[in-house]
Amino acid sequence: MVLKKPSVTYQAISKRLKVSEEDTGSTSIQAADSTAINGNITPTDKKIGFLGLGLMGSGIVSNLLKMGHTVTVWNRTAEKCDLFIQEGAHLGRTPAEVVSTCDITFACVADPTAAKDLVLGPSGVLQGIRPGKCYVDMSTVDPETVMELAQVIVSRGGRFLEAPVAGNQQLSNDGMLMILAAGDHGVYEDCSSCFQAMGRTSFFLGEVGNAARMMLIINMVQGSFMATIAEGMTLAQVTGQSQQTLLDILIQSQLSSVFLDQKCQNILQGNFKPDFYLKYIQKDLRLAIALGDSVNHPTPMAAAANEVYKRAKALDQSDNDMSAVYRAYIH
Amino acid sequence: MVLKKPSVTYQAISKRLKVSEEDTGSTSIQAADSTAINGNITPTDKKIGFLGLGLMGSGIVSNLLKMGHTVTVWNRTAEKCDLFIQEGAHLGRTPAEVVSTCDITFACVADPTAAKDLVLGPSGVLQGIRPGKCYVDMSTVDPETVMELAQVIVSRGGRFLEAPVAGNQQLSNDGMLMILAAGDHGVYEDCSSCFQAMGRTSFFLGEVGNAARMMLIINMVQGSFMATIAEGMTLAQVTGQSQQTLLDILIQSQLSSVFLDQKCQNILQGNFKPDFYLKYIQKDLRLAIALGDSVNHPTPMAAAANEVYKRAKALDQSDNDMSAVYRAYIH
Amino acid sequence: MVLKKPSVTYQAISKRLKVSEEDTGSTSIQAADSTAINGNITPTDKKIGFLGLGLMGSGIVSNLLKMGHTVTVWNRTAEKCDLFIQEGAHLGRTPAEVVSTCDITFACVADPTAAKDLVLGPSGVLQGIRPGKCYVDMSTVDPETVMELAQVIVSRGGRFLEAPVAGNQQLSNDGMLMILAAGDHGVYEDCSSCFQAMGRTSFFLGEVGNAARMMLIINMVQGSFMATIAEGMTLAQVTGQSQQTLLDILIQSQLSSVFLDQKCQNILQGNFKPDFYLKYIQKDLRLAIALGDSVNHPTPMAAAANEVYKRAKALDQSDNDMSAVYRAYIH
Amino acid sequence: MVLKKPSVTYQAISKRLKVSEEDTGSTSIQAADSTAINGNITPTDKKIGFLGLGLMGSGIVSNLLKMGHTVTVWNRTAEKCDLFIQEGAHLGRTPAEVVSTCDITFACVADPTAAKDLVLGPSGVLQGIRPGKCYVDMSTVDPETVMELAQVIVSRGGRFLEAPVAGNQQLSNDGMLMILAAGDHGVYEDCSSCFQAMGRTSFFLGEVGNAARMMLIINMVQGSFMATIAEGMTLAQVTGQSQQTLLDILIQSQLSSVFLDQKCQNILQGNFKPDFYLKYIQKDLRLAIALGDSVNHPTPMAAAANEVYKRAKALDQSDNDMSAVYRAYIH
Repeated sequence: MVLKKPSVTYQAISKRLKVSEEDTGSTSIQAADSTAINGNITPTDKKIGFLGLGLMGSGIVSNLLKMGHTVTVWNRTAEKCDLFIQEGAHLGRTPAEVVSTCDITFACVADPTAAKDLVLGPSGVLQGIRPGKCYVDMSTVDPETVMELAQVIVSRGGRFLEAPVAGNQQLSNDGMLMILAAGDHGVYEDCSSCFQAMGRTSFFLGEVGNAARMMLIINMVQGSFMATIAEGMTLAQVTGQSQQTLLDILIQSQLSSVFLDQKCQNILQGNFKPDFYLKYIQKDLRLAIALGDSVNHPTPMAAAANEVYKRAKALDQSDNDMSAVYRAYIH
Repeated sequence: MVLKKPSVTYQAISKRLKVSEEDTGSTSIQAADSTAINGNITPTDKKIGFLGLGLMGSGIVSNLLKMGHTVTVWNRTAEKCDLFIQEGAHLGRTPAEVVSTCDITFACVADPTAAKDLVLGPSGVLQGIRPGKCYVDMSTVDPETVMELAQVIVSRGGRFLEAPVAGNQQLSNDGMLMILAAGDHGVYEDCSSCFQAMGRTSFFLGEVGNAARMMLIINMVQGSFMATIAEGMTLAQVTGQSQQTLLDILIQSQLSSVFLDQKCQNILQGNFKPDFYLKYIQKDLRLAIALGDSVNHPTPMAAAANEVYKRAKALDQSDNDMSAVYRAYIH
Repeated sequence: MVLKKPSVTYQAISKRLKVSEEDTGSTSIQAADSTAINGNITPTDKKIGFLGLGLMGSGIVSNLLKMGHTVTVWNRTAEKCDLFIQEGAHLGRTPAEVVSTCDITFACVADPTAAKDLVLGPSGVLQGIRPGKCYVDMSTVDPETVMELAQVIVSRGGRFLEAPVAGNQQLSNDGMLMILAAGDHGVYEDCSSCFQAMGRTSFFLGEVGNAARMMLIINMVQGSFMATIAEGMTLAQVTGQSQQTLLDILIQSQLSSVFLDQKCQNILQGNFKPDFYLKYIQKDLRLAIALGDSVNHPTPMAAAANEVYKRAKALDQSDNDMSAVYRAYIH
Repeated sequence: MVLKKPSVTYQAISKRLKVSEEDTGSTSIQAADSTAINGNITPTDKKIGFLGLGLMGSGIVSNLLKMGHTVTVWNRTAEKCDLFIQEGAHLGRTPAEVVSTCDITFACVADPTAAKDLVLGPSGVLQGIRPGKCYVDMSTVDPETVMELAQVIVSRGGRFLEAPVAGNQQLSNDGMLMILAAGDHGVYEDCSSCFQAMGRTSFFLGEVGNAARMMLIINMVQGSFMATIAEGMTLAQVTGQSQQTLLDILIQSQLSSVFLDQKCQNILQGNFKPDFYLKYIQKDLRLAIALGDSVNHPTPMAAAANEVYKRAKALDQSDNDMSAVYRAYIH
């Protein structure tokens, strides 16, 4: 479909944003174009640990290894480590052992409970923390949890950075995640080559807790968008309109985004293979609502979306992609 | 900000869509690239009437005139016609007179009540309809209203096309609207040069009512997206995060769209000059909810959004841009 | 279960209300105690017409006849009239005929569309209206519809009263409805013996439209209460609590009401025989939301309830009792 | 206002329930009529401790003392103890001290965090627990919290009962609370005279966690009812209807309850003196939503209500009665 006139492009938007960014307190590290093309990131010589090889962690570790980092991995179910060991990773037997043998240990697990267990549980991270050790939690959790973890790590002389990531499995595999970091700025700098390996860009957002807050807001927007898309696609269907035509129209409108296109494709194809687990976006909506709760801020859209995702979970869609929220509308 | 790797572009999406479109029953007219650049549309020699010179109508008429159409205009408050008469338009004294002197009459008014009054009221469209006259209603209304209007027009020998438009004032001025048409296919073809003048692309969706349904769904998605964006931006603010940084992050994510960028800019700048009246998006949400109601389809996201827009209206934001829904979250 | 101390009773509440009522502009007619016991209402000698023999209309007509009124009935499906003719009613062949042969004609139909058709359709009420004829619409509709009907009736010299009723089939059969009236006060007085026959009490609320508004608000509260009850009963079930125990607790709490008890019983017994059609409470929620819309007043509880009832309708519960909204929570 | 016929009374409902109760597993203790009238409860000779003298705790302790119990009290702000010491209570310096010197210690605090701090904090309950000591938590918390507390108490040889109460300040003062208990049935029996002193009736619901679940469901229903009432009262106001008349009608309908009457009175009088803190009903809605979340059960009514209460909190209504949610609708 040939467009009459060029619309405002991502690039144009990005260029403008570049300027505006200089006015804000946030700083960011981007992978330079040439680096990206040549793959010429100079990997840090620090020993890297990685805990948690789920959808996101797997892609991240893969990219860390590709860019030449020395990585020790641990996962609750140890078999998942094998693939990475074949690619050159070392095996850690417990989180404590990984932390005690590495300079910087990253973790990426499912939810606040898992993040706390990993640190505070038996043979947990805390057992391995010594003065100077760096711990980077990439899980998407609530600010209270991350602040609590930061406190116990720091109280043992450790250095803490939270670094939740925006993206999905595909972007993780492609090294195109967006990293939101907050906490110890020195750790952020030490992670520079790691973040370049795994992500397209990173933001440093100040005090611990800010990255958790920002990530919850991003995912709240994402979750509500997804429910809205599913609502529109199903309303088209039940009123006799072509879902394909709806997508054709949307994709030419100013609402068009990669997200909207991909998720509508999922619906059209009935393909809900997880790129971002439905159960995790529901968790994030729940945590975002709680964030609003903590400051008495109403979030009626997120509240409505959360109820739809709960229905989807009741329909056994937890381990499908978030776009499977579609099924909550047709059952 | 330099991007590490090129992301999927609009163009790539459009190309793929082009193929998929061939499989659907919908047909579309696009302004060819060269045409657009040279402005070489061959205007129809039919006499064109236009009723309603609001935000959308004004841009449309302007573009019809620029591309060489013969246009007779009418507006409830006649002064608005002056500018167009200076540009070469003729003045119609009543809707009936416009219809009786023109071959094809377009109308673009605020809501179902206005659309009905225009046709059925004193000196209304129906008084001017003769066999063969074409009437094209571009207002966004509910399917019941448009089907009722089609019926009375056709019962007098007239030919009816509904052609609501997706877009806003800016896109209307730029001749970049998206036109959703349904009804008499011959009229759709007769309007070809008009649609090229005013729009970037048009879709023909079959039976009368389908365009109204599709437009309501599009605007429902748009309205819920907008409320979600406002919810995210305010939650950032009240939790101490930079709204500018939130936008920086969103715009680099897969959620990025022209709409998201523009509306966040409105919020950052506190500039709610209407591009799409808040009162109209609320009306469309209301009609979309009623559409769901008619087929027993729940639309909880739209229902939640509708309540937020009602609050915004109670805060006197009706005549601001839809992005002023932001104010419902901060008061 | 023996109560420790007497709680505030309905009677005590009613007594206090009696006083407070004197301060308000509303007036009311109650069936005196003795009247009720003896059944000694003196029926008006005016000829009464009745249009619409649904759940509510049937009980009303029955009570009108019992109390000695002369009644002519009409129903869309004429067979339903037979029973009442056996009880002494006359048969009207069309709404127009009923109106033209009676002094006061009552109507009680399903929704705004039916109410309009009855008046404006072929052989409709309007055809029978002559100066002095009284028309009393007991349907629950929106204020716009009732004001429109009042206008056309009055423009033909008729006298108009709106008189929607609060209650259900059981209360209708028992002559225990609550009548909300507005419009022509003289008609209200002329209907005195009729209202005593059919209802426990009546309120006169002033200008036409007020009774519709008040009834929609009452039913909005009722509809949201019912959805809330269903939500509580299902949450008990899915978390392993006894629904019977929940009811036992609720019924002893200050939340206890006849409504709550009856509707929980329906749920416990899985008996959703209609006392108040689910489709009608959903219609009333829709109209109440529109009422709020017309004054820019958010009604998020009603909006949420409406979505749940729509789901129930999609599950084929339209013709069950409103308590069948329960099923929307378990499927 | 004289009623035409007696409506179903509370007593009739209660009588029927009495029978049905026998079929369920739950057991209950009621204050016998004579006891209540004569105040002849035989107080246990066990030493009673009480932690937390808020709105609810104050009334409870007062009634325990009146009925002849030996009570040792502790409160975070010690001054609140003075009044009760004058009435014969002993002063405990820390929760640990109270527990170690008493046989049965009750606690009634604000929320899960406070409940945990009380047990696990410095000089907390756990420091005073010895084998055989009974701890009864009357706070309304989530099931996870209460199960966690039960576990630590029992692991030290203590005996645990949860016993959240349904009611408000007035009912607490009147000794008319409803007690929902679960956990150690022996403790429940040992508390018999205490529960009779403070409450109208009590229910034993089985395993620890069940009382928390049931109480959250009760308060969820209550919170949604209250928001619905406020929605109805404000919709009446903005559409020009008398709020007093709305109450008059509601109170005569089957929706009538003590709760509805009292809360409407609050609104009519603009008197929001706390009987049940708005911040606590919001907390309970939040916990009930989380309860639904834990079993993937949608609670759209509670979700909508929660957002309205959050707005009320943002309007500084936290320390007013829950009926102040009204203000969220008019600002």
